[in-house]
Amino acid sequence: MKKIGKQTFIMANDVIIKDTYSVVGPKEGEGPLRDYFDLIITDSLWEEDSWEKCEQKLQKTAVEEILVNNNITKDDVDLLLAGDLLNQIVSSSYAARSSNLPFIGLYGACSTMSLSIGLGSMLIDGGFASNIICVTSSHFCSAERQYRAPLEMGGQRPLSSQWTVTGSGAVLLSNSGIGPKVKSVTFGSIEDLGITDADNMGAAMAPAATRTIKQHLEDIKGKAKYDLIVTGDLATVGRDLTNKLLKEEGIDISNKYEDCGMKIYDIKNQDVHSGGSGCGCSAVVFSSYYYKLLKEKRLKSMLLTATGALHSPTIFQQGESIPGIAHAVGIES
Amino acid sequence: MKKIGKQTFIMANDVIIKDTYSVVGPKEGEGPLRDYFDLIITDSLWEEDSWEKCEQKLQKTAVEEILVNNNITKDDVDLLLAGDLLNQIVSSSYAARSSNLPFIGLYGACSTMSLSIGLGSMLIDGGFASNIICVTSSHFCSAERQYRAPLEMGGQRPLSSQWTVTGSGAVLLSNSGIGPKVKSVTFGSIEDLGITDADNMGAAMAPAATRTIKQHLEDIKGKAKYDLIVTGDLATVGRDLTNKLLKEEGIDISNKYEDCGMKIYDIKNQDVHSGGSGCGCSAVVFSSYYYKLLKEKRLKSMLLTATGALHSPTIFQQGESIPGIAHAVGIES
Repeated sequence: MKKIGKQTFIMANDVIIKDTYSVVGPKEGEGPLRDYFDLIITDSLWEEDSWEKCEQKLQKTAVEEILVNNNITKDDVDLLLAGDLLNQIVSSSYAARSSNLPFIGLYGACSTMSLSIGLGSMLIDGGFASNIICVTSSHFCSAERQYRAPLEMGGQRPLSSQWTVTGSGAVLLSNSGIGPKVKSVTFGSIEDLGITDADNMGAAMAPAATRTIKQHLEDIKGKAKYDLIVTGDLATVGRDLTNKLLKEEGIDISNKYEDCGMKIYDIKNQDVHSGGSGCGCSAVVFSSYYYKLLKEKRLKSMLLTATGALHSPTIFQQGESIPGIAHAVGIES
Repeated sequence: MKKIGKQTFIMANDVIIKDTYSVVGPKEGEGPLRDYFDLIITDSLWEEDSWEKCEQKLQKTAVEEILVNNNITKDDVDLLLAGDLLNQIVSSSYAARSSNLPFIGLYGACSTMSLSIGLGSMLIDGGFASNIICVTSSHFCSAERQYRAPLEMGGQRPLSSQWTVTGSGAVLLSNSGIGPKVKSVTFGSIEDLGITDADNMGAAMAPAATRTIKQHLEDIKGKAKYDLIVTGDLATVGRDLTNKLLKEEGIDISNKYEDCGMKIYDIKNQDVHSGGSGCGCSAVVFSSYYYKLLKEKRLKSMLLTATGALHSPTIFQQGESIPGIAHAVGIES
């Protein structure tokens, strides 16, 4: 059994992150990571006639470009693992319509990037695939319309709210080649401490992040030490809460803890309130910034812990709270 | 590589379907498979105050009962693979809130049962898990509200429409024990021949079923011969189309082809029009009827090909057609 501790899976074979691709919207392109992205689009429609279609195009582009950049064709790819925030994961399925790739649809809200990398790594380690593409996306406008209020309404957003990242990130996993390696995976369970504020996703996700990080560190004890522990999109509110909750458990990661939702924007000056969020957030930040650091060995190891708020407008209206989930992937350069 | 042909994965180790559990609604309990289900609820709310909460309870019950019936605890289960039709797969995530099981959320619309069995089998074969529970569900009332029109409207349904199954089916996969074995998995790609009628899911899914069945049979050639090829929920319209499309490809499976959506209801007398559908359809029919046949060796082998229509009301309103997907799992008694 390639399992250690309670719920962490260990790769017995090489699982290489051979390449990544990131495409982002204009706001993300004005942020501090602007030089790391592969492509920055200039408006939120990108010549499409709806935000949803723009998001599909983002994801389609990410997959197509990663093929081109690696000089491989669709026939070289065994599986496409994809997901996004929209109902029926339409950004993923409609983007994949033309690809003909065997398609595994995932839903983990904003945790989907590490969910897909984790699953993909296990399928490669298990000897089922040579190449797998993992891709996720999100779009500020399509997400606001679906989850909160129509943008046209011009509603005020509280300071705990986060800005859904417009962008798509793709990762090419392979059983051969050169690049950072996925070494371990911890899938989280669903955690719900009763948050009922749809504008405070950071608080809804912090308990899940805490539990998964704690479990992973316990399981992996002595086998890995991470230079960085990176959460997906907890932003300012969720980051602080996670640090606090972990400290209550006797774990202090504050000196090596970063959050993609805080990395992607200049939080003070870009009017994003608590920070970034969305399936695309950890996807594009990992696929650009962290991947570059790993590849250049400026970063030796990291635990990518993307977090998802399983927010549903329907269930929310029925009086339910918002559960969270977090999946962690241990990566070494 | 445990892959043969273009896109079929072969299990090198034992992957045993150790047990199943099925719980269904009253209409399904009046159908021809009534004696095969583990539990039939007596009304569509089951003491809950919304259909969505009833669906969560169905899924929660299926998971809890499969644990009890197999005399195992949550600690014996390495992963829970779950999905359903509702936005943000809330039936799955809310049902799993209390379980604390590591959770992998899937979205494949009505194809989710074979998607989860396929993925779960590969994770067991790959040496990552001893026990995995796969579970999906659907509910007629929650699905109609989300996908088509409020039930209270009393809209007429055309004869091509299908009746979403109320029910949940769970499957316990294991690396040891006695039971039918999963031998092969083919994940399908997304197929779209341009169907734009949200009341004709059978037609939307038939091209995907055709493609996956054809590919699987080509890939597996000479390695397996199935007593039965079973689709998930194509119902009368989709079944006929699939037979026709396969014949055009030179493949005639009509003498050993069955569809869960036609098995679950007495189509002539239960006013379900084309037949059953939904994530729960293939889940409960496989978990009750076919599993019993396999276990008692009255059925030696089957190819379970659950099909999903990736229908999205939002994208549909933007003028798009409805793509389909189908995933196939080869099972031997």
